[in-house]
Amino acid sequence: MRPNIVLFGDSITQESFRSGGWGASLADTYSRKADVVLRGYGGYNTRWALFLLHHLFPLGSTKPPVATTIFLGANDAALAGRTSERQHVPVEEYKENLRKIVRHLKECSPTMLIVLITPPPIDEEGRMEYARETYGEKAMTLPERTNETTGVYAKGCIELAGELGVRSINLWSKMQETDGWQKKYLRDGLHLTAEGNAVVFEEVVKVFKEAWLDASEMPYDFPHHSEIDGKNPEKAFQQKCL
Amino acid sequence: MRPNIVLFGDSITQESFRSGGWGASLADTYSRKADVVLRGYGGYNTRWALFLLHHLFPLGSTKPPVATTIFLGANDAALAGRTSERQHVPVEEYKENLRKIVRHLKECSPTMLIVLITPPPIDEEGRMEYARETYGEKAMTLPERTNETTGVYAKGCIELAGELGVRSINLWSKMQETDGWQKKYLRDGLHLTAEGNAVVFEEVVKVFKEAWLDASEMPYDFPHHSEIDGKNPEKAFQQKCL
Repeated sequence: MRPNIVLFGDSITQESFRSGGWGASLADTYSRKADVVLRGYGGYNTRWALFLLHHLFPLGSTKPPVATTIFLGANDAALAGRTSERQHVPVEEYKENLRKIVRHLKECSPTMLIVLITPPPIDEEGRMEYARETYGEKAMTLPERTNETTGVYAKGCIELAGELGVRSINLWSKMQETDGWQKKYLRDGLHLTAEGNAVVFEEVVKVFKEAWLDASEMPYDFPHHSEIDGKNPEKAFQQKCL
Repeated sequence: MRPNIVLFGDSITQESFRSGGWGASLADTYSRKADVVLRGYGGYNTRWALFLLHHLFPLGSTKPPVATTIFLGANDAALAGRTSERQHVPVEEYKENLRKIVRHLKECSPTMLIVLITPPPIDEEGRMEYARETYGEKAMTLPERTNETTGVYAKGCIELAGELGVRSINLWSKMQETDGWQKKYLRDGLHLTAEGNAVVFEEVVKVFKEAWLDASEMPYDFPHHSEIDGKNPEKAFQQKCL
């Protein structure tokens, strides 16, 4: 009955229902109006995400999502030859994979609101600190992700969105507009703090509003309780749902 | 593909995806394993909830929820003859309405895990303070809910659960075991603080585990990223989802 909004991505999506998470905030904002469906896969890059596409978004579904956020690239941008090499995907392939994902979603539903989100920036020092805390002497000595390289993927993502005519959020740039973004928005140099989650939430809501998915303009799925006559409740429900 | 866990209730359910909310915490706990579906209707009592039953839980659905929490009664227990009289439902009717809801859910799916949750206790002084802050001189001078009356509804809910053989959480009693529950768990004498949300979350997870819905024992919907061979990703996906 209610429309679905799907959040498709990696760990930054998977974690988005933790306290203060951007996914939970979206679910709260759209409560009684749309269902926010969590499809986050920690550690996944776009190459692996392709294997899920037909399972998560089957063609011919009678109820495709009205909107989908695609938030991938943080793992694709892991450097070749470093400790997270296994996740690395070259930037040209990253763009091609995103193109396949967008094309598939458009095939599922030509009216679906598709929002590409770039990876957040990388705080290389924060990543190293986290590695030392987690792995001690076995920690990497060279960064497995750099902010510069992730920026190349972010640029590719935004270019592709323009080319395909879908909306996008340049999180990599947006976060770096704020002084101290390294610790303010990132808790381990990569994943988001509550404040970082708030930035994603605000940006997604802004893009949704600019399109046509404004929660404040969407109807409640059933009567608001103030519309129900205590003595004659049937009336409100007859109008709204029978 | 993933099973659904539905949270059906009033405002305390509707608000449960706010920061620190029990619904968001459940969605996080079951991420990649089950979808947590928010069906909270602020201000609703059991009488009004009945109008939604066939819409939210259609008979003959090919995918009924594997579990549903029913968290109603806080509004039924509003006192007759006071400012929230419109929401009042006599306790015997409250029990009958819950019985109808449980019966309907069992008809949807005889294996569904059904959990009845009692309303939380009422901090009458907290309610009055909130009314004065919100309405000033126009605030009610007599409480519209009392802890004692809500306790009668809680008792009715637990009795009914025993009679119907479904699981239950006596939140009214549980919260009052902790000193200072009035301000610790309730933010306006009725709705939950983050700590109050944590109590609901822990109790629901405990009941789910005691049944068979233990997130730690449920499979991921697709391979964990650590199982994917960077050079031969097909293999992991062939095993798990093709």
